[in-house]
Amino acid sequence: MTANPSAATAAVAASRAAERVYNFNPGPAVLPLPVLEEVQRDLLALPGAGMSILEISHRAKEFDAILGGAEADLRKLLGLSENYQMIFLGGGASLQFAMVAMNFLPGDGSADYIISGHWAQQAVKEAKKLGKVNIAASTETEGFVRVPRQEELRLDPGAAYVHFTSNNTIYGTEAPAEPEVGGVPLVCDASSNFLSRVIDPGKYALIYAGAQKNIGPAGLTIVIVREDLLGQPLPTTPSVFDYKVQAEADSMHNTPPTFAVYIAGLVFQWLKKLGGLKKMEEINAAKARLVYDYLDQTEFYHSPVAREDRSRMNIPFTLRNAALDGEFLKQAERHGLTQLKGHRSVGGMRASLYNAMPIEGVHALVAFMREFERNHG
Amino acid sequence: MTANPSAATAAVAASRAAERVYNFNPGPAVLPLPVLEEVQRDLLALPGAGMSILEISHRAKEFDAILGGAEADLRKLLGLSENYQMIFLGGGASLQFAMVAMNFLPGDGSADYIISGHWAQQAVKEAKKLGKVNIAASTETEGFVRVPRQEELRLDPGAAYVHFTSNNTIYGTEAPAEPEVGGVPLVCDASSNFLSRVIDPGKYALIYAGAQKNIGPAGLTIVIVREDLLGQPLPTTPSVFDYKVQAEADSMHNTPPTFAVYIAGLVFQWLKKLGGLKKMEEINAAKARLVYDYLDQTEFYHSPVAREDRSRMNIPFTLRNAALDGEFLKQAERHGLTQLKGHRSVGGMRASLYNAMPIEGVHALVAFMREFERNHG
Repeated sequence: MTANPSAATAAVAASRAAERVYNFNPGPAVLPLPVLEEVQRDLLALPGAGMSILEISHRAKEFDAILGGAEADLRKLLGLSENYQMIFLGGGASLQFAMVAMNFLPGDGSADYIISGHWAQQAVKEAKKLGKVNIAASTETEGFVRVPRQEELRLDPGAAYVHFTSNNTIYGTEAPAEPEVGGVPLVCDASSNFLSRVIDPGKYALIYAGAQKNIGPAGLTIVIVREDLLGQPLPTTPSVFDYKVQAEADSMHNTPPTFAVYIAGLVFQWLKKLGGLKKMEEINAAKARLVYDYLDQTEFYHSPVAREDRSRMNIPFTLRNAALDGEFLKQAERHGLTQLKGHRSVGGMRASLYNAMPIEGVHALVAFMREFERNHG
Repeated sequence: MTANPSAATAAVAASRAAERVYNFNPGPAVLPLPVLEEVQRDLLALPGAGMSILEISHRAKEFDAILGGAEADLRKLLGLSENYQMIFLGGGASLQFAMVAMNFLPGDGSADYIISGHWAQQAVKEAKKLGKVNIAASTETEGFVRVPRQEELRLDPGAAYVHFTSNNTIYGTEAPAEPEVGGVPLVCDASSNFLSRVIDPGKYALIYAGAQKNIGPAGLTIVIVREDLLGQPLPTTPSVFDYKVQAEADSMHNTPPTFAVYIAGLVFQWLKKLGGLKKMEEINAAKARLVYDYLDQTEFYHSPVAREDRSRMNIPFTLRNAALDGEFLKQAERHGLTQLKGHRSVGGMRASLYNAMPIEGVHALVAFMREFERNHG
């Protein structure tokens, strides 16, 4: 009924693929190559559907299977029990900053926020528009080079919830463990280390994660929430942002970002095939170790982060001689190592090693760093 | 650096493409085949970028060019003047139901809503959570088979805005012209006929359109808004939903749905190549005429919609003998004509003929309808 892609087009596609580089983007970020290849293969028509995933109705049986499969696989990966709802929502973590407060911050109550970086501060800013916030702790005066320690937390036992960020993309810190919060519901922005290691979901009341790090493309957020906490939104909450409404509608109160859900489903399948979160955790530990071990034995580069809070996902490092930054980035680019420029608030470099970054990419990075040191040290 | 797609994969992709059917989905809906082919060709690596559009940072120069190009092309297509801002947002029209009120409905004012269908009712429901709403007119008692006429509108000259729906996907009605609202700002949900014809943007204060009909995949909404109206949101409005914040950040206050923006940009290029909105309008008129002309000369099928308000985008029709509905759908499917089942609140069939539905698909539909009539009439 339509023209087949020509051999010429296939050749162009192949030559493009050969141009692929190692992408250390902090997000949107690298995706697993087998996932991209499957998306490409089926882009004009999903098997059996006769149309592209981009054209399929969210009410179609094909999408039903995609969404259902994605949820089942993610539940399995996490070992999630039945008393948690899983919601696939549009938007990103910034929307959750507001949604968490809309759903959980009652007019007369307050919520505790642990401030470990810029995004936690943004979460506070949005919550404050809707209710009362207590800053339980902050490492801002130290430039966020570490996360607040348990003994520093000034927690309110009557708080509606405690909010923390499990990994800080900008500063390259990662909470070694969940804060202990007694019986208060624990809410976690896990955007930048979701699915990178085994967690115990039972410790959480709510986990949210924007997709564009370890899940899929930008424009999707996954929310995992304990069922008994639902149903008390502020009266001004738009229906699409009421967790209970979305949970009861199986994430389809309005049209979900169907394509992003499809990719997320393929990524979950890839993770399962790989061996699940335990295996992924081992791989991520090995990848991060390659970089940190090298950083620890050189004087040429420097890791600004407190050792005990080092992130396995985002590794900032500086050159002792910052005058070489531009040259480093230019040569890295030539070696097919891209997006290594650090966040403006930290400076230097940052290598993001999300799940989909192959260990070969990390070997290539460290080899290049050594070579650059040899030539400029 | 990575494996090229094998010849076998290319062959599978080609055989999938050959399976493509005519997709009459009301949304998410058919997309232009040349757009899908370009997406497929470049999926593993965007030209010059070395990575997939799915992996590119929204802060990268490549995405800058994509977003800037999409905006420039859409401005040109619409003939939009400089005093309008254009915003690419996540979410869909349901989010705009709330956002319009968050941004434009002051605590002491009220807004006029013209009710021509289910989605207008949903818009009212969301606005009512935040402020006062006046129903200017409704055709609900007539089953929404027509849109309210100008002389029926009970407009409040002091209203904050008037909201109307330019095309009603479920009922298959389309407003023949914009309501005349004097100096009151006119807000339009144009989700299901955006870019299907020439409009005068100067008549509008704000136009919003979910992408999944004529623009691209689900998860993106385009908002066009007169600049002088910005900057007075309700104090509880989340930053990501403040039009002014997003306009000033060039749609990047938070990570936008980058892939959906990319597709939208390709669709705008496709429209420009086709000859722009005037040409698109002619094609759409011709496509709709094929179906309506046939419906007007047969007793076997019936069009439930008032003649003067017939939509060119969504054409509901019923079989006089509803017992044949199932057989009609089954045989249509066999002819490669899919997703023709009508909305449950209208029944019968519905053919959605968005921009990307080729006229060949409409010819095939009418030919099948004739054949079915011959065999069952």
